[in-house]
Amino acid sequence: MRTTRIDINCDMSEGFGTWMFGDDVDAQMMPLVSSINVAAGFHAGDPSTMARTVAMAKDHGVGVGVHPGFRDLVGFGRRHIQATAAELVNDSIYQLGALREFVRLHGVPLQHFKLHGALYMHAARDEEFAEALITALQVVDSELPVLVMGGSVIDGVARAHGQPVIREFYADRHYGADGQIVFTRDVGALDADTVAAKVLQACRQGTVETVDGQTIPIEFESVCIHSDTRGAYELMRTSRDGLDDAGIDVRSFAVA
Amino acid sequence: MRTTRIDINCDMSEGFGTWMFGDDVDAQMMPLVSSINVAAGFHAGDPSTMARTVAMAKDHGVGVGVHPGFRDLVGFGRRHIQATAAELVNDSIYQLGALREFVRLHGVPLQHFKLHGALYMHAARDEEFAEALITALQVVDSELPVLVMGGSVIDGVARAHGQPVIREFYADRHYGADGQIVFTRDVGALDADTVAAKVLQACRQGTVETVDGQTIPIEFESVCIHSDTRGAYELMRTSRDGLDDAGIDVRSFAVA
Amino acid sequence: MRTTRIDINCDMSEGFGTWMFGDDVDAQMMPLVSSINVAAGFHAGDPSTMARTVAMAKDHGVGVGVHPGFRDLVGFGRRHIQATAAELVNDSIYQLGALREFVRLHGVPLQHFKLHGALYMHAARDEEFAEALITALQVVDSELPVLVMGGSVIDGVARAHGQPVIREFYADRHYGADGQIVFTRDVGALDADTVAAKVLQACRQGTVETVDGQTIPIEFESVCIHSDTRGAYELMRTSRDGLDDAGIDVRSFAVA
Amino acid sequence: MRTTRIDINCDMSEGFGTWMFGDDVDAQMMPLVSSINVAAGFHAGDPSTMARTVAMAKDHGVGVGVHPGFRDLVGFGRRHIQATAAELVNDSIYQLGALREFVRLHGVPLQHFKLHGALYMHAARDEEFAEALITALQVVDSELPVLVMGGSVIDGVARAHGQPVIREFYADRHYGADGQIVFTRDVGALDADTVAAKVLQACRQGTVETVDGQTIPIEFESVCIHSDTRGAYELMRTSRDGLDDAGIDVRSFAVA
Repeated sequence: MRTTRIDINCDMSEGFGTWMFGDDVDAQMMPLVSSINVAAGFHAGDPSTMARTVAMAKDHGVGVGVHPGFRDLVGFGRRHIQATAAELVNDSIYQLGALREFVRLHGVPLQHFKLHGALYMHAARDEEFAEALITALQVVDSELPVLVMGGSVIDGVARAHGQPVIREFYADRHYGADGQIVFTRDVGALDADTVAAKVLQACRQGTVETVDGQTIPIEFESVCIHSDTRGAYELMRTSRDGLDDAGIDVRSFAVA
Repeated sequence: MRTTRIDINCDMSEGFGTWMFGDDVDAQMMPLVSSINVAAGFHAGDPSTMARTVAMAKDHGVGVGVHPGFRDLVGFGRRHIQATAAELVNDSIYQLGALREFVRLHGVPLQHFKLHGALYMHAARDEEFAEALITALQVVDSELPVLVMGGSVIDGVARAHGQPVIREFYADRHYGADGQIVFTRDVGALDADTVAAKVLQACRQGTVETVDGQTIPIEFESVCIHSDTRGAYELMRTSRDGLDDAGIDVRSFAVA
Repeated sequence: MRTTRIDINCDMSEGFGTWMFGDDVDAQMMPLVSSINVAAGFHAGDPSTMARTVAMAKDHGVGVGVHPGFRDLVGFGRRHIQATAAELVNDSIYQLGALREFVRLHGVPLQHFKLHGALYMHAARDEEFAEALITALQVVDSELPVLVMGGSVIDGVARAHGQPVIREFYADRHYGADGQIVFTRDVGALDADTVAAKVLQACRQGTVETVDGQTIPIEFESVCIHSDTRGAYELMRTSRDGLDDAGIDVRSFAVA
Repeated sequence: MRTTRIDINCDMSEGFGTWMFGDDVDAQMMPLVSSINVAAGFHAGDPSTMARTVAMAKDHGVGVGVHPGFRDLVGFGRRHIQATAAELVNDSIYQLGALREFVRLHGVPLQHFKLHGALYMHAARDEEFAEALITALQVVDSELPVLVMGGSVIDGVARAHGQPVIREFYADRHYGADGQIVFTRDVGALDADTVAAKVLQACRQGTVETVDGQTIPIEFESVCIHSDTRGAYELMRTSRDGLDDAGIDVRSFAVA
């Protein structure tokens, strides 16, 4: 793609009350990213944690998106729950609205919508849910960009409806020959320099190496680095430095 | 007050998933009221129940308000939880936003804000919480009417900030000589005709009988009949008939 | 089977705090059954509801079993949640222990173990979960009877380990030609006389009619009538009357 | 008291699913203590976390107690919730039973009972709750030691009923002239050497310095060091070293 600017997004607000799955991580990561995905209460993110995260993002000029997940605190939204498309759309709308009120309270715009964990994967595969969700988003906010895996079911459905999409490049995941990520629940420790080089190559050449050794083209508008990946801060810090050194501007997709 | 029109409000969406504390009650009550208070997930009201309730209200042309409560499903929001004002404001903002997204989805306006149960009582008494809450509402929606007990702490705070207030008359509660309601957790069965007469007198004469036999003046813009009072439908039906027969127009305060 | 006595089991404690999915149902059903399955907090059944249910069962001399389900209040444990066998065993052990403490408090024995809803179905099909669960039960209570669908995976696993099993006949479900029940989420209203006749035939002839019109043999030690089936009380009342009239003794399997 | 042996207890299992408020802390602390208090699901401690904690305690030969708290994940059981004594006893019994099943599964005894956070404080002050709780414990396990603040309401109630009590010395809390701890929600960072000296003095001289500079006598059978106090590991490590160096045997009160 040979881009000269790129967005970096990261999940935040991933605590619940006293627990902060990355409290310091949030504070460390915030200066390095251009967009954040805010957990909104179902898999993480109690209201006060959400409020603090939004305020912190505002201070750093970082774009705020909502990150709805399955109702599953104990499983952190990583477990699929069998439910109708309608139930899951209502759950998503609920979380979207909750965060929207906090961005209103803190005087920042709602920048995007990104599903979390197992719900993200569900929308990537399930036509009925993707269709019902995008139909609802068309009603409540037809201009709200949805972060997706390029080529996934929801990517196609959103485009068909005219809902804006932002495709992600997963810096801390492995890619298969089909350009899809190879999911493994327990990602081993990744080497920060390797990840940074991978991000840089994706931004400059628009390519990625697959698990079976091929180099394939990849298109995306945002780099995702998960804050719960082991050594996340190092991966982020090194990747960001790499982009900065290469003169690639890290800036939210929503900024002109 | 000698009013010729009045609002009737009622709590709805008071279920959670399979449980409906008044599923049929909601359907029965809806045609009789002009405003509803929608539980938004903390003490009752899962997203799909909220969505159904909003759709039903739209069909009946009933005004929809949000009904935030303490995070307490097992206690139905009736138990006070010790928490900071900031936590409770964030909890309220969260629930407000969640419902607001559903009214947007269903194409109806958000009509009002009314706290539930122990949180309603907390705002009626606690200056710090009332002040913090109204300050937040001023930011997110300075025109949103707040339903209050006339003369309560939040009534005064809202007026001081210029947030609109709607005072309630509690048809199914007893009044003390000070014009405040006498709270009892277990309200015995009430006689429907007595309640209807009380409502009619309040609307026509602007007075109410107190528990110690006095007749005192009372000012209000909405009549509240709780859907979980024993025999709620009969109380509502009879009160509504009484108002209709007396030529008093039951209409939302938000309707011109 | 030509039995002269049979157990009837029914789910109870299916409320949460204020909500009672069948409060009166519990009181109505209790005199008609010989065993109950007590929801233990994950899909229903807060501690105070559990305590009340156990006390009521004691008064009626009814056998008390635990009814563990998925952690899913909003879905009432009817939705499958993707989880490891180890997680689900720990969830089950937790619920088992919770109820066991209440039966100890009320001075009655713990009579049996029966999984609820989607977790019941999971154990009926999933070898790994069934194996892990029975292995744990062997440690904590190797004499505790497990209620199962005859011929299901957990039935076989329990027998292999020597854990006692009690097979159920589902009065309010339809049977396929393979002797397995045909699951439908929304069971239409059933005719009470038809159900009562079906129960009686199962007890006296040891047979059941399948959905495709065959008569097949069926073996069981307990009749299950779900309390959340529409018209449950009528089904129970009529079935019980039918057994009484036929001189079949309704008595818990645990009673000598 | 001039003791030559003492118990050290510490809260553990204080996570929920993915979140571990001290996962590494648990592993670090376990070799240093003789007793642990296991969160049992209401304020922290999902079933799988409980199971892991019990297994780890077994490996270290550490005594396992249950640590029931208010139903308040978001507030970590530190917020008082208005509830009847009966409700809170049922909540406590539920949590007690849940943990008891895990110790049975892992083949270790249940060593003690200690309430958590706001519920601990409630029992220390509220006669009705203390009485109802001890009455229930007398039924389910009259030999189970209850960890208490010496001189608190529950201390007196337990003694009156014959329920064994173990009094605690709070290494990381300040004492008032009345021998009661001075509660502050945000405990500042404590100096490890100071805490270690305080513990040693309490064990050897049976005295403690109060916030107003007095030296008062203190009686206890267990030292409590909270795992969520800032720098908890250092406090524990240094205190333990101090006891070891002084030849004071750190051993559970339950060990002969």
